[in-house]
Amino acid sequence: MSPPPPDNGNRGCIFMVKSNNDLMIKNFLRGVSLKPVKVGVCGLGVVGSGTVNVLQRNAEQLKSRTGRSIQLVQIAARRPNPACDTADISVTSDVFDVAKNPEVDILIELIGGCDVALDLVNTAIENGKHVVTANKALIAEHGNEIFERARKKGVIVAYEASVAGAIPVVKALREGLVGNRINWLAGIINGTGNFILTKMKECDSPFAEVLEEAQQLGYAEADPTFDVEGIDAAHKLTILAANAFGTKLMFDETYTEGISRITPDDIRYAEELGYCIKHLGIAHQTNQGVELRVHPTLIPQTHLLARVDGVMNSVLINGDAAGQTMYYGPGAGSEPTASAVVADIADIARLLDAPDVLSGTSVPPLPYDAGQDDVITLSIEDIVAASYVRIRAKDHPGVLMKVTEVIGRHGINIDALLQKETRENDGMADIVLLTDKIREGVLIKALQVIAELDDVTGPVTHIRVEHLG
Amino acid sequence: MSPPPPDNGNRGCIFMVKSNNDLMIKNFLRGVSLKPVKVGVCGLGVVGSGTVNVLQRNAEQLKSRTGRSIQLVQIAARRPNPACDTADISVTSDVFDVAKNPEVDILIELIGGCDVALDLVNTAIENGKHVVTANKALIAEHGNEIFERARKKGVIVAYEASVAGAIPVVKALREGLVGNRINWLAGIINGTGNFILTKMKECDSPFAEVLEEAQQLGYAEADPTFDVEGIDAAHKLTILAANAFGTKLMFDETYTEGISRITPDDIRYAEELGYCIKHLGIAHQTNQGVELRVHPTLIPQTHLLARVDGVMNSVLINGDAAGQTMYYGPGAGSEPTASAVVADIADIARLLDAPDVLSGTSVPPLPYDAGQDDVITLSIEDIVAASYVRIRAKDHPGVLMKVTEVIGRHGINIDALLQKETRENDGMADIVLLTDKIREGVLIKALQVIAELDDVTGPVTHIRVEHLG
Repeated sequence: MSPPPPDNGNRGCIFMVKSNNDLMIKNFLRGVSLKPVKVGVCGLGVVGSGTVNVLQRNAEQLKSRTGRSIQLVQIAARRPNPACDTADISVTSDVFDVAKNPEVDILIELIGGCDVALDLVNTAIENGKHVVTANKALIAEHGNEIFERARKKGVIVAYEASVAGAIPVVKALREGLVGNRINWLAGIINGTGNFILTKMKECDSPFAEVLEEAQQLGYAEADPTFDVEGIDAAHKLTILAANAFGTKLMFDETYTEGISRITPDDIRYAEELGYCIKHLGIAHQTNQGVELRVHPTLIPQTHLLARVDGVMNSVLINGDAAGQTMYYGPGAGSEPTASAVVADIADIARLLDAPDVLSGTSVPPLPYDAGQDDVITLSIEDIVAASYVRIRAKDHPGVLMKVTEVIGRHGINIDALLQKETRENDGMADIVLLTDKIREGVLIKALQVIAELDDVTGPVTHIRVEHLG
Repeated sequence: MSPPPPDNGNRGCIFMVKSNNDLMIKNFLRGVSLKPVKVGVCGLGVVGSGTVNVLQRNAEQLKSRTGRSIQLVQIAARRPNPACDTADISVTSDVFDVAKNPEVDILIELIGGCDVALDLVNTAIENGKHVVTANKALIAEHGNEIFERARKKGVIVAYEASVAGAIPVVKALREGLVGNRINWLAGIINGTGNFILTKMKECDSPFAEVLEEAQQLGYAEADPTFDVEGIDAAHKLTILAANAFGTKLMFDETYTEGISRITPDDIRYAEELGYCIKHLGIAHQTNQGVELRVHPTLIPQTHLLARVDGVMNSVLINGDAAGQTMYYGPGAGSEPTASAVVADIADIARLLDAPDVLSGTSVPPLPYDAGQDDVITLSIEDIVAASYVRIRAKDHPGVLMKVTEVIGRHGINIDALLQKETRENDGMADIVLLTDKIREGVLIKALQVIAELDDVTGPVTHIRVEHLG
């Protein structure tokens, strides 16, 4: 079996078709009857260089699997990146050159941020180019307008790489689980946060110390706010939820809480109670409305998601037909993210000859359902959840009684209770409760009353509990 | 926002398009400009009734997400199934009625087996129908010919439901990881076997006892051979491997070993050594050739795959760009399998208006690479693996020395060693070894010599070890 002839972008010559080897004809036709796809990459950082490397290394396989060669015709980069070879590719320092290059079919936006990236993507769309992006902030905050613009111009905007790196979870939600009504999903979708929580648990170390280590290892940025305060996870949750529920992107409605106030004590107490603390993004379709929330969460130690450690990501999805499926892998990194970028390029490549790529042949950017314009999102006070509560109080007789009296008065049931001397041995004790499910607004009121009790000295912490059952 | 007008299969009327509400126009155009997809279901057992239920319950969502209504126009069933409502659907007792029904666009083959099912699928293809099937035996054993026939007729044969139930792992391999060269994959792809091993471990019970329990619970068939001897897993591995490596389907080349000879002792010893025994399907692309093997395997207790218990399935995939990603979920059952069937229907529905669905717009049934006709598969003697070895011998001084002498003479390194009195307290002892990686042919020779030693009384067992690192 000889390989198909080199791809010259022309239509096939009839003499080859006379061969009676079906496979050869098939490959021949695939190789030359479909034009190559011309791709321009904007941004040559970690993900950009990975994308260049994967496109080059696996070019033959990609051609065989999509029926076309994928040609990297232009790169826009502020400076060269020795991590990849750009020798035979036109390089510009202006990303807008790529957006305006008539040769480019697909613009790959890998510059990040929302300012230039938004302009760039809009310009590419205006110029009739399909767009592939790994930019979660851009899609979560501006996706609704971007998709609308793309629809009007008849181009595709694909963003698999914006959520959970290598894991094809957008495709799983939108295509693999298309027959399901999604009840809820819960994911570890920020590798930095998961690394920090994993290390805090393994080493019994405080947040600040582990954050410093993560920064030294390159897992956390110099300004770690986006990761540790949950904004990055909220961007990703926004994208997952819109795909799950057929709503618009609702970043502004997403409740976001980071991990910086979690202490080694909390992690230890949770363990004693049979739980593990993970920073989760949770989207939940309830009868009252949609919950969109990112926060530290106690989950059972025996749950598979509790075993997802370090910088790995994982998304658990509950569909009405499929039940629970879970998707796991590296949530960031050069080639893992490139893997998702290249998958989007391949999907678009397959559709390039369809008469109108948006006529129903392509999967729309969001599975937006009619009648979802007025979807109700619940405020965090309105969600109903079980909680872990930690109260630092003077180790006096009667404190526990006062605390449980307030809890009971608010109609909250206690599922489990620990009272522990603090490690500081300072005459204080930690009272730890697990509550039954209760509307969060009620719990917050009870905790405010408790915080004002004479014997309560420290802040009253609460962390939501999910059984993911 | 009013819902789109009812779908009558006609083209849209122009007056609606005059509305200036973009979304309404979009939905309107989607609703009426695309013909409904007409589906015929063959087989109304567990998966068939689940498919009917999901198509009916989630009809509105499916229409919104694929741009077409999916109409169930005919069902072939030997007898009614009270688990679903077929009141308004034409029902026949002859599956070939569906294959020949000019109204049917997509035939859903859910009858199972390879005899009638093969005829049925061939007839459907000859009649120009697309096919969706959940039949792993049919695809693994006859897929090469079926796909060739489908290619000639320009129809799609989709089979996501044939592997790992609800988990969209074929889509992940073929589309989500299209940019990767797959190095290897390893999966728990038979729920019955995994349930039995999980129970044997939890209850310290022998295989035969747990098998009986699995049969009572409906997790194992009256004749459990397909599941416990690994044939079902080999079918699924065949399909995964062809998708991973771009080869033909090679069921006949797949080495298959079941779980019936695993004892509670093996499970306990493995645990002491830090391992868990799982029944895995493993496909490995090596420099020497492709390994295709289904067998019990020791994997580290700390590995995520070791936590996949009961009837759940999970597939771990190692790609050169993505690294390790894992896909987890229910591997069987009525609606979980239907979820995958419906996803395939939706994929085909999107492509129905493409000018030639096989022109490069659709994902081909296998990502078959040119030049892979002469792929080399390795025999089990030629694979290189670490092993767990258990030898039952008289509890005499000197036995261990004789055993290790034979091992050493064959150039095999020992990584760990246990010597344990048997629980029967019968003067016998179990010698348990973990070997370094060695060509299996060499290990087998050494074990044959050991089996013939005077003091060795029982069978010499070996189980391969994989670190999946």
